[in-house]
Amino acid sequence: MKTILTVAKDLLVQGIREDSIVADFTMGNGNDTLFLSSLVPKGHVYAFDIQPQALENTQKRLKEHGAPENVSLILDSHHNLERYIPGGIDAGMFNLGYLPHGDPSLTTRRETSLPAVQKAVERLNPRGVVVVVVYPGHEEGRLEGEALQEMAKGFDPEVYDATVFRIVNIPHCPYVVAVERRR
Amino acid sequence: MKTILTVAKDLLVQGIREDSIVADFTMGNGNDTLFLSSLVPKGHVYAFDIQPQALENTQKRLKEHGAPENVSLILDSHHNLERYIPGGIDAGMFNLGYLPHGDPSLTTRRETSLPAVQKAVERLNPRGVVVVVVYPGHEEGRLEGEALQEMAKGFDPEVYDATVFRIVNIPHCPYVVAVERRR
Repeated sequence: MKTILTVAKDLLVQGIREDSIVADFTMGNGNDTLFLSSLVPKGHVYAFDIQPQALENTQKRLKEHGAPENVSLILDSHHNLERYIPGGIDAGMFNLGYLPHGDPSLTTRRETSLPAVQKAVERLNPRGVVVVVVYPGHEEGRLEGEALQEMAKGFDPEVYDATVFRIVNIPHCPYVVAVERRR
Repeated sequence: MKTILTVAKDLLVQGIREDSIVADFTMGNGNDTLFLSSLVPKGHVYAFDIQPQALENTQKRLKEHGAPENVSLILDSHHNLERYIPGGIDAGMFNLGYLPHGDPSLTTRRETSLPAVQKAVERLNPRGVVVVVVYPGHEEGRLEGEALQEMAKGFDPEVYDATVFRIVNIPHCPYVVAVERRR
């Protein structure tokens, strides 16, 4: 079966065109930033992280791969997205938890990640998708995921499809919450 | 976003080859039986229903579409599958609830549908998938789905991936429970 990250990427790309405006709300080491940059050569990627190391790693990675100059690297929390993104977005990616190989105490937290997801969903253009990967293997991740699912249940079904993809017999396995704006 | 039935079919086909042994555990009007028949020209489809009308409709449909003679139509409950299927299966489909345009009082029931899913999962060949579409819009369907999800959580994670795909902001929307045998 597809891995959860493959499911996440498949969902993410469906609303993306070459001139799309997209966001990587959890830059980390820049994997998703690079992926998104390659998909929108005539568009733009906004990438957020609160750790300077993330911006440094990502800038290096983009340069190494000859990425087009379509990325804004933003040293701020994703819940301040309205300070940087002027209009709507066609796709937004949240890979919650902590930076791989980074400080595990520096994890995303409900207080900021949930408002960020809410704002990102409100910014979606028609057919756009916000994809969130949740890591319930650590306690904050577990609680973050539960709160996120509760929030997802509340999105107006006339406008959004909020879908959960979860391997239920592996409780600690990452899972996906995806919100698509239908119109 | 893909509809739930598209998700279900995409999951179902991944373990199927032209010589696969597969099962439609809820024949109904034969839609899935016909679909499966076309995928396994050198294999076999076992199709179950307890309503004679379902077998009649399905036989007619298979004939109309010139389906290969690779289908056994079985007038019995899916929870008696071991009486008819001699060995392993590569895919099994359950589309729970009642026959479209049929008698809504004749719905699948937990007492038989859950043992049937359990037996189907135990029959899976490596890489095989059992896909269950649940209809929580009627009370028995809601309870059937909850019990099924509880059962799914118990499948050995060393052997199976049990995945739930659900649109969480539309409580009555059909959803998918898929169980893949990994090895």
